[in-house]
Amino acid sequence: MIFYDCSTAPSPKRARMFIAEKGLEIETREISIMAGDQLKPEFLAINPFATIPVLVTDDGTVLTENNGIAAFLEAACPEPPLLGTTPEETGLVWMWNSICEFHLGQPVSEALRNGNPHMAGRALTGQRNIEQIPALAERGLARIDDFYTLLEKRLQDSEWVALDRFSMVDITAYVFVSFTRVVKKSIPDANIATQNWFQRMKSRPSASL
Amino acid sequence: MIFYDCSTAPSPKRARMFIAEKGLEIETREISIMAGDQLKPEFLAINPFATIPVLVTDDGTVLTENNGIAAFLEAACPEPPLLGTTPEETGLVWMWNSICEFHLGQPVSEALRNGNPHMAGRALTGQRNIEQIPALAERGLARIDDFYTLLEKRLQDSEWVALDRFSMVDITAYVFVSFTRVVKKSIPDANIATQNWFQRMKSRPSASL
Repeated sequence: MIFYDCSTAPSPKRARMFIAEKGLEIETREISIMAGDQLKPEFLAINPFATIPVLVTDDGTVLTENNGIAAFLEAACPEPPLLGTTPEETGLVWMWNSICEFHLGQPVSEALRNGNPHMAGRALTGQRNIEQIPALAERGLARIDDFYTLLEKRLQDSEWVALDRFSMVDITAYVFVSFTRVVKKSIPDANIATQNWFQRMKSRPSASL
Repeated sequence: MIFYDCSTAPSPKRARMFIAEKGLEIETREISIMAGDQLKPEFLAINPFATIPVLVTDDGTVLTENNGIAAFLEAACPEPPLLGTTPEETGLVWMWNSICEFHLGQPVSEALRNGNPHMAGRALTGQRNIEQIPALAERGLARIDDFYTLLEKRLQDSEWVALDRFSMVDITAYVFVSFTRVVKKSIPDANIATQNWFQRMKSRPSASL
């Protein structure tokens, strides 16, 4: 297998942590977004969406999305289970994963890509340049605040985001929460349950990769 | 189990078709978005995100997202498999599902919710009113055109979107493609592979529900 990674970006960090939590070691190639590697013909031949992460499996299947990579690895290497073990758990994992992607991943990305002058023309991933929409950056910042409220409520009821133990969703949420710093956001001081969960996450070996 | 449905909206149609393709009959309650039922206290007590579909399982687990509902039903009722059977297939299904959600579901929703005067203040789902961003509606329309090109290319290579047979992703794509009519878009006449796939989908009993 070959894992196409980028050490500076949040999306590949989700896959990198998932791989580490599975205890797997996969041959890795660094694609530098800073250097524009994702838009070079060599990489577009692998992934025309120009996104990272990508996992190429032993039979040559190209998986270009975090959810595809995670679902493949869970089926190929079931231990330790990161997507739940009962039908209800499996449902809760994919449900909370969607919630974190929509209510946090999307707003962080929108706030950064539409608000930072260095991202001009890069409001969305992909080969085509897309102009920034300043109002979308503002909306993203407000939605991040809303998500922090939502997450605190959830973590007051549950030690982990989706289940009563660590799952893929804690990776999803941790990576996005960490990344809110790029738009000058952070976990509010009063959100004690979230602060505690974040420290538990940060202490996992996979988080430092 | 109880399935909370809304006959006029695309998101619950994804779950409704998935349930039908599994051959399941689940007690269903209609939540009328036209009547604002999703924002009434009775429904918010079930789903504070104010979205439909929702599936409440026999043990009382509340699943509020299409991906959570599908993953639960696939694990609880494996036949016929709709999420792939090998690890590679499972990966491809979740990969293409993410692609269809990001490159089609999101732009259709953005085009409608930010461009239609009847959706003023409802630019996003949820309890909070969010103002429209006209530039986002425009961007959405352009991205729908891009997706139709992408989908045609894929369906020229593969009879179905994710696998060499019908899967959940065909439901995801079919529901969003059908819904592009609300922003006056449709499959371009020249996209023959997509037209043929759409007719195959339309003839499935689940599509008429």
